[in-house]
Amino acid sequence: MMQSLGNHLIVELYDCDAGLLNNVGFVEQTLVKAVKISGAKMVQSVVHEFNPHGVSGVVVIEESHFTVHTWPEYGYCALDIFTCGNTIDNYSALHYLKETFQAQSFSVSEIKRGILDLPVKLLHKPELQEASHATQ
Amino acid sequence: MMQSLGNHLIVELYDCDAGLLNNVGFVEQTLVKAVKISGAKMVQSVVHEFNPHGVSGVVVIEESHFTVHTWPEYGYCALDIFTCGNTIDNYSALHYLKETFQAQSFSVSEIKRGILDLPVKLLHKPELQEASHATQ
Repeated sequence: MMQSLGNHLIVELYDCDAGLLNNVGFVEQTLVKAVKISGAKMVQSVVHEFNPHGVSGVVVIEESHFTVHTWPEYGYCALDIFTCGNTIDNYSALHYLKETFQAQSFSVSEIKRGILDLPVKLLHKPELQEASHATQ
Repeated sequence: MMQSLGNHLIVELYDCDAGLLNNVGFVEQTLVKAVKISGAKMVQSVVHEFNPHGVSGVVVIEESHFTVHTWPEYGYCALDIFTCGNTIDNYSALHYLKETFQAQSFSVSEIKRGILDLPVKLLHKPELQEASHATQ
């Protein structure tokens, strides 16, 4: 049975608000809120401010990571939303990030990570417990 | 002039040593050494150990990030090496990681991030100063 361990959204946000992309506190708060919206569990967030401009933000989650790197001078930021399990609403998080940074255009590639051919269904990663119980 | 802001290696390492992938200290030390080999400047590293097994490691660098997520039970780990500027030797870092985790097979996709059409050559990101001086 072909199954993937991870799901990775590779996102380019263009023509964002430059002031927002250069505000390290705002970027961190936005990324943390996006994690919350997705339903992922935050482990730790790290942000870094560049000289003369730009911010990097990383949130390690129980289900992998969210990262953002901003180039305010071009209104651009690179987002990565890497999750595992099937309970994370990564597209709601993406919608929130796109709206909050006021991106005028964007592109997304969705990549499956770690595709394996396993004899049994993966059980050890986060699952919708209630849903699976309900079908038993 | 078409130019990209970032360079992203998306790497799958298969059939690695399970014990190494499950050793949080080893994973962190290996990722930090890979950053050093690449010539990138480490800002902060974060690791997280999963129950019952698996490790996440993230290193925020001045030039973006290195991440690893391991599934020891499948001998698999997902690596991401996201860098900007043209001084980082990401493939040397990748070679080191592949060898150190004893991957028996692997795949790599290299993606350009933030491709923009700019009238001038990007100057504000890390450059090989000596090389550019030498050609003047």
